Amino acid sequence: MNILFTHVTAVTMDTNCPLLKNAFVAVAGNQISYVGDTRPEGDFARVIDATGKVMMPGLVNAHTHLPMTLLRGLGGGCDLQTWLNDYIFPAEAKLDGRAVQAGTSLALAELISTGVTTVADMYYFCDDIAQVVAQSGISANLSRSIVCFAPTEEPTTLESWSEMVALADKWHGHNDGQITVDASIHAEYTSSSCANLWRETAKFATDRNLGLQVHVSETQSEHDECIERHGLTPTQIFEQNGLWAPRGVAAHCVWTTADDMKVMAKNGVSVVHNPVSNLKLASGIAPIAQMLEAGINVALGTDSVASNNSHDMFEEIKLAATLHKGISGDPKEISTHQALALATVNGAKALGRNSGVIAEGKIADLILLDFTRPGLMPCHDVEENLVFSAHGSDVVMTMCRGAVVYENGAFLTLDMDHIRKELEDYALPLLFSK
Amino acid sequence: MNILFTHVTAVTMDTNCPLLKNAFVAVAGNQISYVGDTRPEGDFARVIDATGKVMMPGLVNAHTHLPMTLLRGLGGGCDLQTWLNDYIFPAEAKLDGRAVQAGTSLALAELISTGVTTVADMYYFCDDIAQVVAQSGISANLSRSIVCFAPTEEPTTLESWSEMVALADKWHGHNDGQITVDASIHAEYTSSSCANLWRETAKFATDRNLGLQVHVSETQSEHDECIERHGLTPTQIFEQNGLWAPRGVAAHCVWTTADDMKVMAKNGVSVVHNPVSNLKLASGIAPIAQMLEAGINVALGTDSVASNNSHDMFEEIKLAATLHKGISGDPKEISTHQALALATVNGAKALGRNSGVIAEGKIADLILLDFTRPGLMPCHDVEENLVFSAHGSDVVMTMCRGAVVYENGAFLTLDMDHIRKELEDYALPLLFSK
Repeated sequence: MNILFTHVTAVTMDTNCPLLKNAFVAVAGNQISYVGDTRPEGDFARVIDATGKVMMPGLVNAHTHLPMTLLRGLGGGCDLQTWLNDYIFPAEAKLDGRAVQAGTSLALAELISTGVTTVADMYYFCDDIAQVVAQSGISANLSRSIVCFAPTEEPTTLESWSEMVALADKWHGHNDGQITVDASIHAEYTSSSCANLWRETAKFATDRNLGLQVHVSETQSEHDECIERHGLTPTQIFEQNGLWAPRGVAAHCVWTTADDMKVMAKNGVSVVHNPVSNLKLASGIAPIAQMLEAGINVALGTDSVASNNSHDMFEEIKLAATLHKGISGDPKEISTHQALALATVNGAKALGRNSGVIAEGKIADLILLDFTRPGLMPCHDVEENLVFSAHGSDVVMTMCRGAVVYENGAFLTLDMDHIRKELEDYALPLLFSK
Repeated sequence: MNILFTHVTAVTMDTNCPLLKNAFVAVAGNQISYVGDTRPEGDFARVIDATGKVMMPGLVNAHTHLPMTLLRGLGGGCDLQTWLNDYIFPAEAKLDGRAVQAGTSLALAELISTGVTTVADMYYFCDDIAQVVAQSGISANLSRSIVCFAPTEEPTTLESWSEMVALADKWHGHNDGQITVDASIHAEYTSSSCANLWRETAKFATDRNLGLQVHVSETQSEHDECIERHGLTPTQIFEQNGLWAPRGVAAHCVWTTADDMKVMAKNGVSVVHNPVSNLKLASGIAPIAQMLEAGINVALGTDSVASNNSHDMFEEIKLAATLHKGISGDPKEISTHQALALATVNGAKALGRNSGVIAEGKIADLILLDFTRPGLMPCHDVEENLVFSAHGSDVVMTMCRGAVVYENGAFLTLDMDHIRKELEDYALPLLFSK
């Protein structure tokens, strides 16, 4: 369907034309077909007047675990080990595909209604996740992350390996790239004696031209224990085993060193900064200013809402833009524009996608925010208001790949009544009834 | 008007009964008249079914500068001195009473719609601020903060002194305490040679039984330069001059020392933590865990939206509950319940108010949040969802002193069309036209 937006004020993230005022943006199929100051030729099935609103590229949440939305706020206030062992793991042990679909649907409703148009996921029950994602219209990089606590002679005989392969076989490239599949090693500390698994996974990803998602140096103990085991940091031992040959997406990187950053820059590894989750779990603060300085592509994510407890990316944008100023004492550290880049163009690059920018030929992932609300007035600087004043709830339209999937509080691809019913009647009783 | 809430789930902040489930809360006049499990006797002009919602005490924003909402996002990305000298001060120099009313109205719309029922303000044009506050229904502690850059023989001849006295004469105690007036010294660094001013102000506040608002140790340079000048920290030089004799409200306290904390605890000084503003201005992080440990009452504020740039107190609550965990490495630092206390009962105590708690005899400052939205489901723990998942936009009803002032997106005491018109037709042209 061809759609024309008129009277557009937009932050484009396009360096050639960063800010649009009273402009036109046209969409044909799943792409942006026109951006300019004059009305384009052609017939449009729908014309959307964007007066009073601000357009920006749809947000990219480059690290989460969608089904864990079922566990939002569970066991809060405990230390990490108690939280995992007494709350999270027992609940996850009861999961089935239907519950995963319920949790994923809920997560997608939250994401889409707060302006996210692309999401990266690491979990299991991936076929169930993919089914819900496909229906919702959101773009997603899905991965079945592999954990292996004992040495294994033949990694490709692991059940999780088979699931990763099946996921890639069935879903990679689905719907013209709406879904792409990434390979995934969960982390060094959950596969520490399986260097052959890392090498096989890198080979699989390279052969299939997939990206590779992995948790890296999230906590100090994880980072230090890796050095004790291998004499190398997670980033370095992964490099030694070829894991950075595919397009690498390294979540967290709180404790990565200057040497690690050189390795990541050299190998084109993208880092996903998860500032809220890293603070909440007391993991620390990733040195992303230094990473950007080192030439690393840094994206942004929420992590799962079990440790956040929100999928609102505007929180991450604002925290990324304020936290590093407060820590460094430099009010210019992580600029307003950089903070927006983390959540848009950098995220798209990390996930290997032709989006995150409003420009002709890009995937039509677009959102509109209502700038007539009290909390967004006045507007002296659009980027300032987007980064420091906007909330996910200010999003009044989300377009994924050329299709409006959310508008003025209504979901067009998801059924909230069904999601609530599945949650209350099935998923929560399954996980939490005695 | 007598109002009854039914089917109430509530976090009360009342230690005797912290959580209500399927309860009744009744309001008579401006007070809470009943809290309990059975329906109370009596006739009610209105019955509000709170099914699917969560009630909590209205939030207390214990430090802001309301009219500066006109300057939201202005000059962002500059260092502090450029920001102040090139953007903020020139705009403020053009202010008049009508523009102040426009900015204050906009601020109150944002505050009320995001669940704030009490606010503390430090600014000038205070009569204009008071007029708008009075009409809005929100409770406020208003102060005319005094700045004096040269020694003065007779502080009571300052124009700002006269304005402080006039404010107290006219507005202190207005409408059964809706408005209270506090005395205010802006800060040590803006009155460093005027110890006699501090003593006179303390005497004035004590004589009138007013509180006293002051900025303390917001930046390291301010703190260190005070020590250079006086051999004492701001907290200590103020103590030496009796400034802590009234109910003291000290904003920021980022650089306060362990000795300062003893002084504050001994003198019953409340601290107002402004975590977002302190990060954004690169001022640092106030050690509030140590302050709470030292027995200090710690409240929470946004600071003005010129340095935030939002009045959404749920951001402050979440940041207070996550930031100190991330900095200390202790996931139990600032508990979920403590974070809620900062924004409710502690704020009310700081401002000398009988509110911040849902209990019989307390002022009826109450808010309802819609817990059926995707971002607040599921709810395993009400406090966890309030602190880590809720946003100001989830507030669907705000009651100030027994009167519903905001409900389902509509303002009942403020005229948004008029506010927008005054902003666009008068205040912004006045401040920013060449």
